[in-house]
Amino acid sequence: MAAPIEFYFDFSSPFGYLASEKIDQLAAKYGREVVWRPFLLGAVFKITGGMPTMQVPIKGDYYKRDFPRSARYLGVAYRQPTAFPMNALAPSRAFYWLDAKDRARARQLAQALYRAYFVDDLDISSAENTIAVAAKMGLDADAVRAGMNDAAVKDRTRAEVDKAIAKGVFGSPYIIVDGEPFWGSDRLDQVDKWLATGGW
Amino acid sequence: MAAPIEFYFDFSSPFGYLASEKIDQLAAKYGREVVWRPFLLGAVFKITGGMPTMQVPIKGDYYKRDFPRSARYLGVAYRQPTAFPMNALAPSRAFYWLDAKDRARARQLAQALYRAYFVDDLDISSAENTIAVAAKMGLDADAVRAGMNDAAVKDRTRAEVDKAIAKGVFGSPYIIVDGEPFWGSDRLDQVDKWLATGGW
Repeated sequence: MAAPIEFYFDFSSPFGYLASEKIDQLAAKYGREVVWRPFLLGAVFKITGGMPTMQVPIKGDYYKRDFPRSARYLGVAYRQPTAFPMNALAPSRAFYWLDAKDRARARQLAQALYRAYFVDDLDISSAENTIAVAAKMGLDADAVRAGMNDAAVKDRTRAEVDKAIAKGVFGSPYIIVDGEPFWGSDRLDQVDKWLATGGW
Repeated sequence: MAAPIEFYFDFSSPFGYLASEKIDQLAAKYGREVVWRPFLLGAVFKITGGMPTMQVPIKGDYYKRDFPRSARYLGVAYRQPTAFPMNALAPSRAFYWLDAKDRARARQLAQALYRAYFVDDLDISSAENTIAVAAKMGLDADAVRAGMNDAAVKDRTRAEVDKAIAKGVFGSPYIIVDGEPFWGSDRLDQVDKWLATGGW
């Protein structure tokens, strides 16, 4: 079987969220699986000298318009979060805690967290809010909290961020198909064609 | 008749070039005209704190792959220029010199300059190379040279760059349809739908 598609994203990234609503379905069309890998843009920006888009003069105003417009274009629900951008450490740790036990369930948690943030305007940078989203899925709140505070989970999260950066991931979403990297939800069409044709 | 589509681009911008090969045909589908407006990204970067993409760590390597891949995806000829990026002042002045006399011809010159740079690997930051491209189109080389050195043309070029920045143009290509801005050649699908529907 072909290797899974690697899907890197930051929980604070609007375009990561948009791609998250499309990537599994897209991969399934070609009988492919997706490995979800949250990382932290803040760690990347330390290397690239980048900064959160909304803080870039002029560009920020454009994106206030482009985020919801691109969401509507793709048919994805979107509300601009009040706390934006945010540090995605808490949801990333919750994800990696669960991922070690049950990859499919972790993917569901990631989707629930993304929707809580980008549809329900819940600030998931708060550990308690992240735990509440997990609890709503039926996970035990105390177990999630303990998992997020587990040193091994913290180490795994840090290691995954480092691994992503080592792979060249510099933005969100970042999708790797058979070694070929695609940056941005606006590359989903190219990802589709790459999966269909194996490259061009 | 509906207002023309505004097409802002920097002659050094690969995605500006890709859009330039598509925008007129796209507009024509909806009976719309396009006003071509070269500007200078360097002037924008002074305000936004941006820098040429290829100089951003990690990101530069990605784009080396993404530029030709996106060109092939769109069916546009592309060769990575040796002198890249370059200061687009000379071709921009040649454009605005001609634009004041003959808008359609200036558009042709812009296309010829873009192809010279992104297909034939000619460094059009050189005034003499820009003049050579214009001469190949049948323009008088001495007239072009004199035009590029004309104080009024220099002023017009500067004024157009300032006007672009005042409109919020921060990247290339930047396309405005009935007041709605779109940044990037990867927004051409949205431009198409916007022209078809008037928005969504």
